[in-house]
Amino acid sequence: MNTRFLDACKGLPVDRTPVWLMRQAGRYLPEYMEVRKSCTFLELCKTPELAAKVTLQPVDILDVDAAILFSDILIPVEPMGMKLDFVPGPVFAEPVRSMADVERLCIPRMETAVPFVLETIAILRRQLAGRVPLIGFGGAPFTLACYMVEGKGSKDFMAIKKMMYAEPETYSALMVKLTSMLAEYLNAQIHAGAQAIQIFDTWGGILSPADYEKYVLPYTSRLIRCLDARDTPVIHFVKGAGTMLETVKKAGAHVVGLDWHVNLASAREILGSTPVQGNLDPGVLYAPEEIIEAEVRRIIGENGGRPGHIFNLGHGILPTTPSGNAKFLVECVHRLSQR
Amino acid sequence: MNTRFLDACKGLPVDRTPVWLMRQAGRYLPEYMEVRKSCTFLELCKTPELAAKVTLQPVDILDVDAAILFSDILIPVEPMGMKLDFVPGPVFAEPVRSMADVERLCIPRMETAVPFVLETIAILRRQLAGRVPLIGFGGAPFTLACYMVEGKGSKDFMAIKKMMYAEPETYSALMVKLTSMLAEYLNAQIHAGAQAIQIFDTWGGILSPADYEKYVLPYTSRLIRCLDARDTPVIHFVKGAGTMLETVKKAGAHVVGLDWHVNLASAREILGSTPVQGNLDPGVLYAPEEIIEAEVRRIIGENGGRPGHIFNLGHGILPTTPSGNAKFLVECVHRLSQR
Repeated sequence: MNTRFLDACKGLPVDRTPVWLMRQAGRYLPEYMEVRKSCTFLELCKTPELAAKVTLQPVDILDVDAAILFSDILIPVEPMGMKLDFVPGPVFAEPVRSMADVERLCIPRMETAVPFVLETIAILRRQLAGRVPLIGFGGAPFTLACYMVEGKGSKDFMAIKKMMYAEPETYSALMVKLTSMLAEYLNAQIHAGAQAIQIFDTWGGILSPADYEKYVLPYTSRLIRCLDARDTPVIHFVKGAGTMLETVKKAGAHVVGLDWHVNLASAREILGSTPVQGNLDPGVLYAPEEIIEAEVRRIIGENGGRPGHIFNLGHGILPTTPSGNAKFLVECVHRLSQR
Repeated sequence: MNTRFLDACKGLPVDRTPVWLMRQAGRYLPEYMEVRKSCTFLELCKTPELAAKVTLQPVDILDVDAAILFSDILIPVEPMGMKLDFVPGPVFAEPVRSMADVERLCIPRMETAVPFVLETIAILRRQLAGRVPLIGFGGAPFTLACYMVEGKGSKDFMAIKKMMYAEPETYSALMVKLTSMLAEYLNAQIHAGAQAIQIFDTWGGILSPADYEKYVLPYTSRLIRCLDARDTPVIHFVKGAGTMLETVKKAGAHVVGLDWHVNLASAREILGSTPVQGNLDPGVLYAPEEIIEAEVRRIIGENGGRPGHIFNLGHGILPTTPSGNAKFLVECVHRLSQR
């Protein structure tokens, strides 16, 4: 078994830097588009055989060191009682705006609410047969709250900020409920066979460091404490958190994910011995090969041979990325980091 | 004359912290909406009497310590030969994509290309009559290049990154041309009477620190050197630059603008004696007054009594902000910073 990824999560030395790509199963792969012809995005998430199939594609095609469950962070929100659509971005037609809305949300039993997620994980563990580890994932409570309160993506996140500042009890009740739901959801993934968990806090960076510490950290940190993660590393990725890594570290994850807005060497200095994951600008995958190679060399150089580095993009791979460049990137990381 | 703002730009002690708000002349003010009933946004920018009128509104209504010219960063791009529309976001129907496109762009004579801008400044200096100083402004070369190459706002900025990485000569030719144009444009504003200049690099933060240093800094830094700014402070605001303030400082502006993603005390430590401007989250203006006041107190506390702080938002005020809260903010800053 390729244990490079799990070893790096524990800060152990590895023969070469493990690499996987956020959204590595996705639209930039012609093989994925072929599968998507026959179903919608949500159908794909909910059909274990197909979800497993597209999860494995990048393992075969790119030679990455980890597989990540094909799903969406909003999948467990639907069975809380919120109708979800993709048009193509996610939309909740009836956003959460009041305490009554929060009270109506339920915390479902995961085995009946999202059986397809657990079944996909079981299939994948059989099909991977130890080839590379399988990562499960979920959104952080704050990022899910943003979608649920805004009703969709947003530029300025007024609705969630209004609730946070002006209706702190409603905000807190929502965050508490989401934290409990996520603990059950991610523990269910671990019990089904996920060998690592990534928590995506896509919107954690919209707040000031002071507000992040007050309104987000307590919940994410409680979530991480509630995970059955003795043998399951937790990766905590907060997009836009380069100016508050000390605070993100306090959440207590095993690994901190970094976007591309931060210098890896500076980040490692702030984070001490905590392993890190990142941090190539996904836009670099539109560059010629010599620039991709130079950027990989720069990032590996910034890491400076410290153990505990998982190479990744600083955010999800973009849908129009040339897939050959993604393959070249993985090859570069392996070649340039060879001990 | 109220010299608080200009004194703070020079790092001199002041009786209370000066404050103005990015986009303080704008849609959140009913008085502005009244003027906008009779004309389009572009017509408003191009009609000196009206532009001057809305520039003065926040000075009268909010009691801010500086006026900022009402205009748009894309105004000087139009006379370079690019048709500009607002729908309502800015759109260039024919974006710049090749060296031939760059070569077709001209650097116009400012007196004939944007006479309305210079006339607005002249009117404003007369009407302000020394009440508060007048700030002129322009986009940074990179931010203008983003709009011109993407053709409009973007989420992932693929087109500009593709050009930057894959067509470096085209990119560089465009940036050189924009730098020259902006030097003429901003110097024309200074000669017309602008008493400070703010350079907005709204998109500088989309790059990694390494790429910012390589692809953006040389041009912004040249632009700042080319300004006739012996007596005219230059404020350099790069949104999303909290992780690369050392690099932003190298551009050489008198004042560095900060968004709300950075702790002001940490930023001042990195920037040394360079004055700073910022950095309240515009979203806080949706909060109840006690939270607005607590946030002002926090930021003034983080500044810790150092001279050289201009209070501002960390980005433009949002169109749906309650205007009473903006007024309360200004009052709070003055009251809580009283020496």
